[in-house]
Amino acid sequence: MRGWEVTYVSSEFGKLLRVSVFGQSHGRAIGVLIDGLPAGENIDLEELNAFLDRRKPGKNPLSTARREADTPVFLSGLENGATCGAPLCAMIENADQHSSDYRQLQDRPRPSHADYTAWVKWGGHADLRGGGHFSGRLTAPLCVAGGIAKQILSRRGIFVGAHLASVGTETDRSFPLRPTAELFGAVAAKPFPVLDDNAGARMQSLILEARQALDSVGGVVECAAVGLPAGLGDPMFDGVENRLAAALFGIPAVKGVEFGGGFASARLHGSENNDPFTVEDGEIVTSSNHAGGILGGITTGMPITLRAAIKPTPSISRPQQTVSLSSREAAGLVIQGRHDPCIAHRAVPVVEAVTAAVLLDLLLEGNHGTF
Amino acid sequence: MRGWEVTYVSSEFGKLLRVSVFGQSHGRAIGVLIDGLPAGENIDLEELNAFLDRRKPGKNPLSTARREADTPVFLSGLENGATCGAPLCAMIENADQHSSDYRQLQDRPRPSHADYTAWVKWGGHADLRGGGHFSGRLTAPLCVAGGIAKQILSRRGIFVGAHLASVGTETDRSFPLRPTAELFGAVAAKPFPVLDDNAGARMQSLILEARQALDSVGGVVECAAVGLPAGLGDPMFDGVENRLAAALFGIPAVKGVEFGGGFASARLHGSENNDPFTVEDGEIVTSSNHAGGILGGITTGMPITLRAAIKPTPSISRPQQTVSLSSREAAGLVIQGRHDPCIAHRAVPVVEAVTAAVLLDLLLEGNHGTF
Amino acid sequence: MRGWEVTYVSSEFGKLLRVSVFGQSHGRAIGVLIDGLPAGENIDLEELNAFLDRRKPGKNPLSTARREADTPVFLSGLENGATCGAPLCAMIENADQHSSDYRQLQDRPRPSHADYTAWVKWGGHADLRGGGHFSGRLTAPLCVAGGIAKQILSRRGIFVGAHLASVGTETDRSFPLRPTAELFGAVAAKPFPVLDDNAGARMQSLILEARQALDSVGGVVECAAVGLPAGLGDPMFDGVENRLAAALFGIPAVKGVEFGGGFASARLHGSENNDPFTVEDGEIVTSSNHAGGILGGITTGMPITLRAAIKPTPSISRPQQTVSLSSREAAGLVIQGRHDPCIAHRAVPVVEAVTAAVLLDLLLEGNHGTF
Amino acid sequence: MRGWEVTYVSSEFGKLLRVSVFGQSHGRAIGVLIDGLPAGENIDLEELNAFLDRRKPGKNPLSTARREADTPVFLSGLENGATCGAPLCAMIENADQHSSDYRQLQDRPRPSHADYTAWVKWGGHADLRGGGHFSGRLTAPLCVAGGIAKQILSRRGIFVGAHLASVGTETDRSFPLRPTAELFGAVAAKPFPVLDDNAGARMQSLILEARQALDSVGGVVECAAVGLPAGLGDPMFDGVENRLAAALFGIPAVKGVEFGGGFASARLHGSENNDPFTVEDGEIVTSSNHAGGILGGITTGMPITLRAAIKPTPSISRPQQTVSLSSREAAGLVIQGRHDPCIAHRAVPVVEAVTAAVLLDLLLEGNHGTF
Repeated sequence: MRGWEVTYVSSEFGKLLRVSVFGQSHGRAIGVLIDGLPAGENIDLEELNAFLDRRKPGKNPLSTARREADTPVFLSGLENGATCGAPLCAMIENADQHSSDYRQLQDRPRPSHADYTAWVKWGGHADLRGGGHFSGRLTAPLCVAGGIAKQILSRRGIFVGAHLASVGTETDRSFPLRPTAELFGAVAAKPFPVLDDNAGARMQSLILEARQALDSVGGVVECAAVGLPAGLGDPMFDGVENRLAAALFGIPAVKGVEFGGGFASARLHGSENNDPFTVEDGEIVTSSNHAGGILGGITTGMPITLRAAIKPTPSISRPQQTVSLSSREAAGLVIQGRHDPCIAHRAVPVVEAVTAAVLLDLLLEGNHGTF
Repeated sequence: MRGWEVTYVSSEFGKLLRVSVFGQSHGRAIGVLIDGLPAGENIDLEELNAFLDRRKPGKNPLSTARREADTPVFLSGLENGATCGAPLCAMIENADQHSSDYRQLQDRPRPSHADYTAWVKWGGHADLRGGGHFSGRLTAPLCVAGGIAKQILSRRGIFVGAHLASVGTETDRSFPLRPTAELFGAVAAKPFPVLDDNAGARMQSLILEARQALDSVGGVVECAAVGLPAGLGDPMFDGVENRLAAALFGIPAVKGVEFGGGFASARLHGSENNDPFTVEDGEIVTSSNHAGGILGGITTGMPITLRAAIKPTPSISRPQQTVSLSSREAAGLVIQGRHDPCIAHRAVPVVEAVTAAVLLDLLLEGNHGTF
Repeated sequence: MRGWEVTYVSSEFGKLLRVSVFGQSHGRAIGVLIDGLPAGENIDLEELNAFLDRRKPGKNPLSTARREADTPVFLSGLENGATCGAPLCAMIENADQHSSDYRQLQDRPRPSHADYTAWVKWGGHADLRGGGHFSGRLTAPLCVAGGIAKQILSRRGIFVGAHLASVGTETDRSFPLRPTAELFGAVAAKPFPVLDDNAGARMQSLILEARQALDSVGGVVECAAVGLPAGLGDPMFDGVENRLAAALFGIPAVKGVEFGGGFASARLHGSENNDPFTVEDGEIVTSSNHAGGILGGITTGMPITLRAAIKPTPSISRPQQTVSLSSREAAGLVIQGRHDPCIAHRAVPVVEAVTAAVLLDLLLEGNHGTF
Repeated sequence: MRGWEVTYVSSEFGKLLRVSVFGQSHGRAIGVLIDGLPAGENIDLEELNAFLDRRKPGKNPLSTARREADTPVFLSGLENGATCGAPLCAMIENADQHSSDYRQLQDRPRPSHADYTAWVKWGGHADLRGGGHFSGRLTAPLCVAGGIAKQILSRRGIFVGAHLASVGTETDRSFPLRPTAELFGAVAAKPFPVLDDNAGARMQSLILEARQALDSVGGVVECAAVGLPAGLGDPMFDGVENRLAAALFGIPAVKGVEFGGGFASARLHGSENNDPFTVEDGEIVTSSNHAGGILGGITTGMPITLRAAIKPTPSISRPQQTVSLSSREAAGLVIQGRHDPCIAHRAVPVVEAVTAAVLLDLLLEGNHGTF
């Protein structure tokens, strides 16, 4: 009997709110199917498009010169501009395609890209043009989902924001103990999403130097969420950290995720890392937040804080060493086309988007009788 | 109509191989239910108990003086010592309980423990004795599951090993590019699981100093898996990283997870971080492994490497600041009882266990026709 | 590389309330792990045991002479007799075992039992003693889960009841349009669970005749649930019918499930089958209930009604035709041991149990803000 | 804090092969997202369209006069006409809309439709035009998914076919013990999908009479699948019956599902219902198939047989009794528009489609090493 070249693509996350991303970089369209949105939620398209603009390339030399229109077309799920209970499907048609740039990739996988693993998994059937389903372009529909989630959350006083915590070895300062919606808005409005603009200037120089050197550079995104009630999430394997991490690692190029103190906490003593409980305006809070707002997988009511490590863009213009899949011999590679010298700054809204979608899912699940 | 104090405990992970952990620290028993194990797999009880011994406390002053027998009783799933296809349930009865030590915790939550969030979630109904369902003791049944998974994997040439990468600011060296089953075995046989025993001695001093100072200290566990075929895992949200991270954050005290270069990669340039492909003995491999054996969520065939950050034990003997839940006022707290000054070294086999269980699940799912 | 004899046993159902059944008929214990119960729910053990008694065999000649103690031991999830938020595990130890009765089954599969399919799936590793994991005995832990769910539901005015609708060609009358908790209680208290005792007497004669003839006979169970709010369940594949059916087919011997009019509706005209809406005491109701309380997968607020077809017990004492698995030749078979001439009457509480567990799951998921 | 009008729409089924249906009857488009298809599977568009034609209305007086183009546009998942591993999204744009027909429905729910339950669930936000997301029109994208699954299955010698087993009280004969691909093809090619054309003529008369009487009539679809290996499916809650039933109840109007003998088996004795094993051409088979090819939830290798009860179309042109949602008073209703006097014959390919998709999912999951 004929065998399968099996593929269990699973471009979906969420439990009660499910977000499924589809499309290939150079296919007809990319998009997202969102199942489980509350009904009666108005979608402010202007606000959504402003959010999508934050991840768009082509705005300055810090990112690829490719231009993407990225305007979502809503195929289902809306009635008079509001969610109607049925699954919402939004599609973004692909326009600016330069498939010819990618032809040699069919035989010579780009180092540290998914070309090789896609080929192992699906053989010659994989659509590798522009990274196919692994392309960073798939983060556009993710932002559609996250942008909608952010609107729904903000109506309940829950806000999600992020900034670029570092590029290479240059670092921004951290969010304060209690970031506000205003702070999130101020960062989002900046052309380069940092708290400290001097640090931002140094980061931008680093990115431009990398570009000049036909190279790329990595970075870290810090994200926070405020306004969440205590008590969300479940112990062990279905906690807030488990769910956020599972989804955040779905963003292309993310190689590390930490909450609160994260890896830095591992270098501390308990007396330094423990967050003392205290009472503030009648509320039980902690006077520090190394826990990142999560204890035992469950929200404490303090801000959730997390950091995602973004590896340097693997597409660099320098000559690189790879192999020919057909001859199984070493082969050189020079990647053509226009590429981002850094994707960490464009990842800032994407991390917000994924975080918002996961938190909305948790809220839908957890808020029985009290929300 | 009467409302719920809802609880969506979800102490389970896995897709086709499902691992469900149950029990509270001071309840009648803790245990694990494993659904989806291949049939006909012999379970070597001696080897399993040796693995469980690696996480046991009470062996030296580096851990709590509590002694736990932790011998699993198999309620189902075995026939003549081998898996029979039916779900396997293993129970560990609780013996050494000092519940009285924990009485004050009902009103005064321990900083950076789950006492507070459990109370928010379940009110007075939560079983907080000894941490209840959030206790580190629940890692014993996790190790039963992982120990069984390790045996099944090793019969197919797949090996999982780990070592203590750091305690506080003291660091071990990293695994080599291609760790072997022998190296894993050698580390596992050591009383203190490090690669460099000099570094290990420094780490142990740090732990004993913390103990003396009525304090605790954190650490990092590095884990690797070798022998996996390329092509396992799925893009975006169901990749190897997503699944491992989701499960690893289920280990109490884990606050960060990274793969390959992880957060260090975010400080590099693409030309440094990219892993060139090359051919070795006819196999396509990479000459470095910043990817940690995973590209686009899918295994490359190189070793999987990951690191988990373990926060310092929150239970320290120093007086601490907390609140009284009943009076909503500040209150002091001195935690009684016997506690680990560090849990990172005991977490080494737990990280192995969770990694092995997730990888077995992925293999069961992904190996169609080729395995 | 060595292959698997793969087994994806999946003895679990539910979404937020997950019920996992484990054990083999002649293993050490059978049991159930329930994850996601609301915290603070008292479990009335006397009431639970009374419920379990309803499915027990050995009470009269209508069922097997085997006696099962079936007293559950709670390993976890309770604190002072109430649910505490952690997963609840209950175990029933096996006592009355006659494994020798089943030895020949290893080579000669019983017709219409799972012996053959278990052997295909797991080869010689399958535990076939007494039906192994496929045994009707596994309905005891299901009743533990369902009995607990029934208690939680009844505190909110939701009641689930069932009766034996038919045995062979003898039929009971149907539930009235609006059955009550009192009616459910009255049927449950009867030694033979029917509405019309004359019909019940005829059914019992049929069963005894079958027993005398070394034969068995099938039956149908009708189940209803009252007190549910309108609006539970989701369209298409996650509706009340989808979920109930998926779980009910998990009861051994169930071969058909229908809701409301079911197969009879397929013989009607729309003008007969449609349920007119009307207003009663200010509530919108329907004056008939061919929908079985479900439209578009969502509850209408009318009673849910369903029927499950139970095939005749395949274990009959007459000589039967089978094959020898080792020789692949035709072979005779005479099943020894004590068997139920009918299991439909013992399935009545099991259908209630599964229905109650599914409905509780739906309520936990769906009751946002209104419950 | 503002509450939700919550909606957990869950228009998705499958485990490794996931099928998500989206769209509302009168929205911009309907469609399906299929995640987990094997890569490298060519899709024969001509064959697919021929399959879709079988469910199309407007061909004769037996169905509604509405005409639907129903040509799917593939947005993603294909490369050179074959599956490429990435999720496949297919959209069908809506053209022939008569929304004005449905305006009164907003206040007066149609009996036995989902108008009322959708309104309870989503309030005024529900898109009720043409049945919205509950419309039978959503079976078109289901058939896209099923048509693709059928092509993939048929390449491995697995065939799924169905016929109209009854309309009202008129019945077709049943499938023979071993139906063939040829028989399935012959039925599919008929304008009215029955085995016995005389019975078919009587059924058609019944439908036309119902139409004349401004009424509708129900029916039963029998479906079979041949060529499946033994050993697919899992015990208890993840068996072939559980999964098929869960999906089949997602087809609008299905109110009952039975396998093999189903409800008729409940009227039999064990000696009649048991399927004796025998050896045929060296294969272990059964000489009857009351089990419908499934024992203990696992395939026996015999044909799978199932029957789905389809209620009469609730949209009838006769005056009906309903309520006004706004005034909570009784109100009359005359449904305008063009409606099917029977949908059972159009449901024949839909039942095939859902069955094929579920079986492909099971095969993907279960075929380790042997397929």
